[in-house]
Amino acid sequence: MQISFDQELSTLKEKILLMGGKVEQSIRLALKSIVDRDSELAKKVIQSDKDLNDLEIEIDEICHRLLALHQPMAGDMRFITSAMKINSDLERQGDLAVNMAKRALTLNQEAPLKPFIDIPRMADIALEMLKVSLDALVKRDSKMANQVRKRDDEVDDLNDLIFRELIEYMLEDKAKIKRALDIIQVSRDLERIADHATNMAEVVIYMVEGKDIRHGRGF
Amino acid sequence: MQISFDQELSTLKEKILLMGGKVEQSIRLALKSIVDRDSELAKKVIQSDKDLNDLEIEIDEICHRLLALHQPMAGDMRFITSAMKINSDLERQGDLAVNMAKRALTLNQEAPLKPFIDIPRMADIALEMLKVSLDALVKRDSKMANQVRKRDDEVDDLNDLIFRELIEYMLEDKAKIKRALDIIQVSRDLERIADHATNMAEVVIYMVEGKDIRHGRGF
Repeated sequence: MQISFDQELSTLKEKILLMGGKVEQSIRLALKSIVDRDSELAKKVIQSDKDLNDLEIEIDEICHRLLALHQPMAGDMRFITSAMKINSDLERQGDLAVNMAKRALTLNQEAPLKPFIDIPRMADIALEMLKVSLDALVKRDSKMANQVRKRDDEVDDLNDLIFRELIEYMLEDKAKIKRALDIIQVSRDLERIADHATNMAEVVIYMVEGKDIRHGRGF
Repeated sequence: MQISFDQELSTLKEKILLMGGKVEQSIRLALKSIVDRDSELAKKVIQSDKDLNDLEIEIDEICHRLLALHQPMAGDMRFITSAMKINSDLERQGDLAVNMAKRALTLNQEAPLKPFIDIPRMADIALEMLKVSLDALVKRDSKMANQVRKRDDEVDDLNDLIFRELIEYMLEDKAKIKRALDIIQVSRDLERIADHATNMAEVVIYMVEGKDIRHGRGF
């Protein structure tokens, strides 16, 4: 029984990392479909969301099986319930990548407003946060997870910057409003992706350090 | 052992409903602090977030205890893991109420832009969605949960309407930009609260109907 439990726990880790890799890929390609104005690529991102949804369900089933058929020790149980929560965050990040890809389809029908600089920077930070959160989960490392929380402010600042800049565009020329609004949506999607990564990091910190830490930031 | 499990499961239901009630109250008071321009009330909402965070942790602990000390049957186990996921969504809705209250503190320092009509309507729908999702969880009723999903579009439409209207205000008079941006943020917070309620409903549908339903909407 113990070997089978360990095997299944390894499978869980593999699948969560696989899910993370696929979500990362979706976000990356959705961004590329906007920056390179590639609508075919955007359609692929939209289609591939089904794989993510199937994988989310598969991971949930593995977690349920681990909880039901074995009686995991406290540490492993917390790993399994944390993986379930992080699984939900990953799936929602996948949905946000689909939102970005749908926005690409609209944006690509109009002339470009300006070259993208801050949006790719935001995406880079959000992707880094996602990767480090998953790494922290698998390594059960709360220090790593803490680094993720700190980076969320950078993403929020970039989101504000982009928002204010695009408002200027709108005020300058009414013909730019529609495109500016679409880009604001992309920026919001990236901000939410980073928020989910932050939530994932907080789940890891709670898993490792216990109940006193999770809400220790105060106001 | 069986009675104690049933008792603890009842406690879990009570605590989740208590959490739901407190989050609902936070959202309601945050809205009131904006509409009535009541900064003292906004501060109370911000302070009360600590209670929500503590309760989230307490609920998580009950779930872990239920999973560890008893070996729940499949149906109960899915209820417990669903409660854990919904618990996270509730806590995040509480955070969004705090965001709204913080925005009230800024908005209340300036002259009002216009009376609030669509924002309270959005809040009403979001609060209704939240209540029905929790009811559906406790009653394990997927039909009820399905109603929640349908209402999310109404909230999205109102959010778009508010956004477009406020852009008009900004174009009309630059002095209104700052306030308009703050109200756009409030509208976004409410949209995200409704999104979390939708996620909660989807968790319930999956819990009741199993793996074939959750991602059945397609594109």
